[in-house]
Amino acid sequence: MKSSSQVFERTLELKTARRVELVEITHELDRIVASSGVTSGVCIAYVPHTTAGLIINENADPDVAADIEATLERLVPRSAAYRHTEGNADAHIRSVLTGVSQMIPVAGGRLKLGRWQGVFFCEFDGPRRREVWVKVLGDVGG
Amino acid sequence: MKSSSQVFERTLELKTARRVELVEITHELDRIVASSGVTSGVCIAYVPHTTAGLIINENADPDVAADIEATLERLVPRSAAYRHTEGNADAHIRSVLTGVSQMIPVAGGRLKLGRWQGVFFCEFDGPRRREVWVKVLGDVGG
Amino acid sequence: MKSSSQVFERTLELKTARRVELVEITHELDRIVASSGVTSGVCIAYVPHTTAGLIINENADPDVAADIEATLERLVPRSAAYRHTEGNADAHIRSVLTGVSQMIPVAGGRLKLGRWQGVFFCEFDGPRRREVWVKVLGDVGG
Repeated sequence: MKSSSQVFERTLELKTARRVELVEITHELDRIVASSGVTSGVCIAYVPHTTAGLIINENADPDVAADIEATLERLVPRSAAYRHTEGNADAHIRSVLTGVSQMIPVAGGRLKLGRWQGVFFCEFDGPRRREVWVKVLGDVGG
Repeated sequence: MKSSSQVFERTLELKTARRVELVEITHELDRIVASSGVTSGVCIAYVPHTTAGLIINENADPDVAADIEATLERLVPRSAAYRHTEGNADAHIRSVLTGVSQMIPVAGGRLKLGRWQGVFFCEFDGPRRREVWVKVLGDVGG
Repeated sequence: MKSSSQVFERTLELKTARRVELVEITHELDRIVASSGVTSGVCIAYVPHTTAGLIINENADPDVAADIEATLERLVPRSAAYRHTEGNADAHIRSVLTGVSQMIPVAGGRLKLGRWQGVFFCEFDGPRRREVWVKVLGDVGG
């Protein structure tokens, strides 16, 4: 039987707790992929915000996320001579450096990350209610 | 009626006016998506240059773009002890930090960005003639 | 004759030689694309590691890669007050700044990069054996 191509979509809702916070969403993405029926393809996660980002990095030692947060604060400090007067210019710039989307391979009907990888929503101007728009593209069954 | 999958391609041509400049191309991308006939899928924009980039961020307050430009100049100054002798090493490195492609969701036959998001071509070594290669992938009609 | 949509997958294996090293993989990716039979679409390259990255930049003058390496060392030094105690916090953070995936257009059955562009695997914590997971999505023949 020939497999057919499909686009599956879901919105993931989040509530962040701090101004700056890396929230792991690997499990939530994997559940969406599993429910999509897509066996082989790619998962695209997209953040529709301008003061947040999306990264893939180590999820075993939480100190890694803390080091990422601290380095972004050192490189792009909250308080500096910004023109944007809403007090969150740093958050916009950090979003540019991390990016707002990630592609993750899908295989065997599941998210296929590297052994130490997790997907993290990056809150840079929280706490807020946030969304991640998820698409799963690929072949169904077969 | 079953929808069918499609790849639609266009090249967007730009002429930048300054050495460093963030040029919004949201409207141009949306027009390409609308003309593609793709109702649901993803728009991929790709910059085929090594001294330019592509970002998604706020398009309401132009001060945000100015802060992004100024922070990149602080982090990767135009004049520093670079080996590359063409005087644009900073532009190459800034291109690495922003990246050269973006994926944007397509829904209802239009680009589906977050409320405050715009897509910006980042000129880091202008003024020049530039291109953005655009693909629209997804389902047509149905 | 109508073309059909396809997903083609391969794993690229690498052995890096230094702690920090930009290894060009353009030719390897192009060979995978050529062997995929996909004539038009997109090549997705994904790094399943948390201390490595993937970038697209100039491959003509090797000084550009050296400047990228030196700037990342200046912005995210190997030795600083990191919490992560494995001695490679810098490598994790550099991976976040470069990202772990790239999309490259495919046209005429080949990788379609800009004139001066090459794709580089970024080793930030080598030397090690590494992988790049490659997918080619698009239309076959027709």
